[in-house]
Amino acid sequence: MLILSNEEIEKVLTMEVCLEALEQAYQQLADGTAVNSPRADIVVPTADAQAYYAFKSMAGVVPRAGVAALRLNSDILTWPRLGGVQRRVKLPAAPGSRWVGLVLLFSTSTGEPLSIFPDGVLQRMRVGATNGLAAKYLSREDAHIVGLLGSGWQAGAQLLAFCAVRPIQAVRVFSPNPEHCRQFAEEMSRILERPVYPCDTPTSAVQDADILASATNAVEPVIRREWLGKGVHVSCIKKQEATEEIFLHSNLAVLHSLEMIQQENYLPRGEAGAIPETRRGWWSQVTQHELSGKPLYDLAAVVAGKAPRRAGREQITLFMNNIGLGIQFAAVGARIYELAKENGLGKEIPTDWFLQAVHP
Amino acid sequence: MLILSNEEIEKVLTMEVCLEALEQAYQQLADGTAVNSPRADIVVPTADAQAYYAFKSMAGVVPRAGVAALRLNSDILTWPRLGGVQRRVKLPAAPGSRWVGLVLLFSTSTGEPLSIFPDGVLQRMRVGATNGLAAKYLSREDAHIVGLLGSGWQAGAQLLAFCAVRPIQAVRVFSPNPEHCRQFAEEMSRILERPVYPCDTPTSAVQDADILASATNAVEPVIRREWLGKGVHVSCIKKQEATEEIFLHSNLAVLHSLEMIQQENYLPRGEAGAIPETRRGWWSQVTQHELSGKPLYDLAAVVAGKAPRRAGREQITLFMNNIGLGIQFAAVGARIYELAKENGLGKEIPTDWFLQAVHP
Repeated sequence: MLILSNEEIEKVLTMEVCLEALEQAYQQLADGTAVNSPRADIVVPTADAQAYYAFKSMAGVVPRAGVAALRLNSDILTWPRLGGVQRRVKLPAAPGSRWVGLVLLFSTSTGEPLSIFPDGVLQRMRVGATNGLAAKYLSREDAHIVGLLGSGWQAGAQLLAFCAVRPIQAVRVFSPNPEHCRQFAEEMSRILERPVYPCDTPTSAVQDADILASATNAVEPVIRREWLGKGVHVSCIKKQEATEEIFLHSNLAVLHSLEMIQQENYLPRGEAGAIPETRRGWWSQVTQHELSGKPLYDLAAVVAGKAPRRAGREQITLFMNNIGLGIQFAAVGARIYELAKENGLGKEIPTDWFLQAVHP
Repeated sequence: MLILSNEEIEKVLTMEVCLEALEQAYQQLADGTAVNSPRADIVVPTADAQAYYAFKSMAGVVPRAGVAALRLNSDILTWPRLGGVQRRVKLPAAPGSRWVGLVLLFSTSTGEPLSIFPDGVLQRMRVGATNGLAAKYLSREDAHIVGLLGSGWQAGAQLLAFCAVRPIQAVRVFSPNPEHCRQFAEEMSRILERPVYPCDTPTSAVQDADILASATNAVEPVIRREWLGKGVHVSCIKKQEATEEIFLHSNLAVLHSLEMIQQENYLPRGEAGAIPETRRGWWSQVTQHELSGKPLYDLAAVVAGKAPRRAGREQITLFMNNIGLGIQFAAVGARIYELAKENGLGKEIPTDWFLQAVHP
């Protein structure tokens, strides 16, 4: 069994590899051969009741890639207000101030475990590629300006993905932390080899953008209706970043996964009734199909050509990335595993340690 | 992180340890502090369409034990007819003819992974202890004869558990394979230090038993109404082993988990519509509460004293073990981990391999 690190995964997982693997996976999801399990969340108060312990898992099987994947997170969660907005913040409580998220890969022909690795790099790239694929089918073909809200861990991968699918010429970015925003802009200019401008206000960042993207840890809306010009593609990494008004105002609204529309981040269980991000606000009405019959499509259907794509330069399109899917970790994980093997990366430990001569 | 083998777990996990850990876990489940996630199943046809690949996972958090657990199985499944009854058979398709089932333990205070080990020994012991706890509260206090159907991997742990909670003097066992049945009886006589008699027919095995137990891999009923004498406690490791008639005839019926009553073994997903064990027969009516208002209680409620227990010598009681729960793996896993550490068992690999300096 192959143990990989985030650093090793970074060496082999390009945005192009990730986009290609996901595009195939969505085709297979749409034709019914790739299958997800529902995400399972448990949230309980920590011993000191100052935070929550959250255990999250999701699984997916992509038979054509020969791989099943389980992705799990074992987190200490808090929801502070920062920059006037309530955010989800994971505390690095593991030794050495670390976080805990893992992907386990299994062979669908023998059942055996193939690999285990941290989920961070894959998670960032798969979120980027998901929103990138949406932009590929929903944004104007000649989209060249990105207005970005957020300069955190996810924001960079969003830009990598947009640049891989569209002829992006410039990016304008705003975040509540000006110094961090400036550093991010500098670093991403270098990586993308095109200008990334830090902005003082969200409005100046999103003005006249072809792609208006948010990549925040906010659990309440950050995008405003008045920012939406003709032909813009709005891209959210969380559905909570948008509003009902934007959803209704858009000409074409696509959700990452309709199959998981009932699944919420950190649904309260046990004593955890006080968790601030739950089934509330406008979203609860969407999930109950109560919003005036406005259609909402699935990304897999869009990729597979079973749902509408952008029709004309004037349409306002909206993509909301509501949840991760197990098949994303299986499809991209399978490619990581292959490429790591080809490149001799990682540490091998005996697969036999994880097999058994008895069965339940 | 500690890697343990089934052999090492066998050294520390006695039935007494398992019963005690589970009894505490059910108390905490009943008071809402221990929390399960729903079990997630994915079943897809294998490449040759001769079998199914099944990926199963369940999680549970037991904060007072400081542990979260994930249990997963990565199986190749078939459903042949053997001995006139349709059974679920897992093929040992992994290298060296092995099966794949794993338990991962995490700390609820730091999130870090603590241990990973195969699930086989724990699975067998936790099923035994679950039915043992049911027998502790539902069978006659002086129950001394067990009639057992099945002589497979699960059957021995059932006997260990009954002998731990009741003054069992003798066991009579039937299985469709007489030679295997004889060997099982011989081995269990030695282990239990009391007589275990192999029987030629199921009827001769169950006659006049205080505890009528089935421990089979059958996916259709194996227990008959006419076998049930006054005062018997009927114990199933699968709900499918019983019938609607037995359920209605019993004076007190208890299910392992009412919370998971809607969860089924291997619900068909994707192309797997032909799977023979699904939501069918009498059970589908129980899950829809359509069976004439007959009450059905939860084992945790029985253990916590929130549901009825046996009332008098003449009652016929029924326990059906419908599904495994994540908290069982957390509670018993926590004890295994402690005892393995105390006894210096297992292989340590760097926890750092499973931590990350970034977070999604």
